[in-house]
Amino acid sequence: MSYYSIKDLAVKKPAAGVEMRIVHGARMSVVFFTIAAGSGVPEHAHAHEQIGTVLAGEMALSIGAEKKLVTAGQAYHIPPDVPHSGTCLKGPAEVIEIFAPAREDLK
Amino acid sequence: MSYYSIKDLAVKKPAAGVEMRIVHGARMSVVFFTIAAGSGVPEHAHAHEQIGTVLAGEMALSIGAEKKLVTAGQAYHIPPDVPHSGTCLKGPAEVIEIFAPAREDLK
Repeated sequence: MSYYSIKDLAVKKPAAGVEMRIVHGARMSVVFFTIAAGSGVPEHAHAHEQIGTVLAGEMALSIGAEKKLVTAGQAYHIPPDVPHSGTCLKGPAEVIEIFAPAREDLK
Repeated sequence: MSYYSIKDLAVKKPAAGVEMRIVHGARMSVVFFTIAAGSGVPEHAHAHEQIGTVLAGEMALSIGAEKKLVTAGQAYHIPPDVPHSGTCLKGPAEVIEIFAPAREDLK
């Protein structure tokens, strides 16, 4: 199967107000997030490289020592093992994040 | 540098009516496409795995033997070496495609 309707993908809820719908490949996982205002992900780190972009809403992101308010039209890169966090300031935020290698822990 | 404004990224034009702005990582490349109606990419294949999603517009995609009209809210997966093509039917289309490993040929 090559094509997916994102809304029909299984929903994971890693935290209150945070929904993840995921397309897994062999080398990467693409996560479609919907995040309610006030919700987010506390600081954490992992060995996966991560690139993200915000489609709607406003996210307060912290990547290592760099903090920024991120809105539609912006993207960000998180190298492996760099601590990062994100909180939705205006929501719901629509965010796409890609992890490589694939997130076996989320399959 | 962790954060990028997509509109400020260098523009590549692989075909008439097709613009690519790219965030390269070590393990993947994330390409933000803007594709004019009537433009697209003829059938081709590559060793990179590819996952994409359409944010706006309408794309006629062909992945191996599977053809589909893809609009906002849909995603697709292209395994390595599978021939694929895409033409924008309603544009400009906004499309995000991720390649793993990174596209050294596009750096």
